[in-house]
Amino acid sequence: MERKDLPALERLKAALALLPGIGARSAERLAFAILKMDEEKAREISESILKAKESVHPCPRCGLMTEKEGDCAICEEEDRDKGSLCVISDPKDFYPIEGSGSFHGLYHVLGGSIALSKGVDPDDLKIDELVERVEKEGFREVILATEPTLDGETTAMYIANLLKGKGVEVTRLGYGLSLGSSLEYVDTLTMGRAFEGRRKL
Amino acid sequence: MERKDLPALERLKAALALLPGIGARSAERLAFAILKMDEEKAREISESILKAKESVHPCPRCGLMTEKEGDCAICEEEDRDKGSLCVISDPKDFYPIEGSGSFHGLYHVLGGSIALSKGVDPDDLKIDELVERVEKEGFREVILATEPTLDGETTAMYIANLLKGKGVEVTRLGYGLSLGSSLEYVDTLTMGRAFEGRRKL
Repeated sequence: MERKDLPALERLKAALALLPGIGARSAERLAFAILKMDEEKAREISESILKAKESVHPCPRCGLMTEKEGDCAICEEEDRDKGSLCVISDPKDFYPIEGSGSFHGLYHVLGGSIALSKGVDPDDLKIDELVERVEKEGFREVILATEPTLDGETTAMYIANLLKGKGVEVTRLGYGLSLGSSLEYVDTLTMGRAFEGRRKL
Repeated sequence: MERKDLPALERLKAALALLPGIGARSAERLAFAILKMDEEKAREISESILKAKESVHPCPRCGLMTEKEGDCAICEEEDRDKGSLCVISDPKDFYPIEGSGSFHGLYHVLGGSIALSKGVDPDDLKIDELVERVEKEGFREVILATEPTLDGETTAMYIANLLKGKGVEVTRLGYGLSLGSSLEYVDTLTMGRAFEGRRKL
């Protein structure tokens, strides 16, 4: 039900529907909520979007999100176990892993999974950079925490092969992850179990 | 899991969590989606929020949202049945009603329902304005489409009493609405039934 005298409302609905998981109905509901909100709160949402886009960028070393210049706070944290590296597909997978309290090493973000059917091949991911880090930074263990899907599994196998003979133990999160699920929604307990039950590749 | 080197991301998550129905986890998911988006799309969301807040205001006559000066496009639409008035609590209730195709008259937005327990009394709503319109605009029928809740029912009864003896037929949406539900989510078929089965008060 489009109203001709409400172009700015229609534009807002269309813009909100650009967000993942927000359909036409949800976008309408959110648009009306924004119209009802205090001016100040709506402005805060608007401004924080621009500010985040402007300030947040990947860490040049590990690929996690950061807003500081140079290596991110995780790479630079003194208490971290610099001998252990956790390889993830997406920066947001950092949160459930960190939240599990089972891992205190460094991270490496691949930027996706190998998916030949979708045209994502190893060159599109930060795999060369990973091998280079393994050679330079002298890790004791590399934990492959790619998504528990077919593509994630393929990516883990591909990387495990590349790292063979480089004197590093390569493990894969195992126990607790159910095939086809999304890492982002794994509860912290299950994530803890997955770390405990990781298997050597 | 808060990151000290990501203040703009934390701010964006907090801002998105101001939206109704968006919890901490959803806000995080949306914030990451915004970071991944094209610059242009994120800017569009940000700008459309400000533009909508700036441009959209209630129609001075009926209270529906509009962006034009003076009466809204619905009030001014020539094809509308000017003898029939539909009274709603909230501007967004316009959409399911209009979508049902069962009503082609004018609207009047109350701006809420009477809820004495929450301190909302008749003076807080556009009820005086409604009585004034009924006296001036000579409606044949006033359809009370307040929410199918206790407060909505109370509001309908209160208005029905006020309009007694003013020579206008007062009806209430009946058939099809289930008590305790929200008008906003009623499907158009049920809404059509509710219009057909409206009863005289």
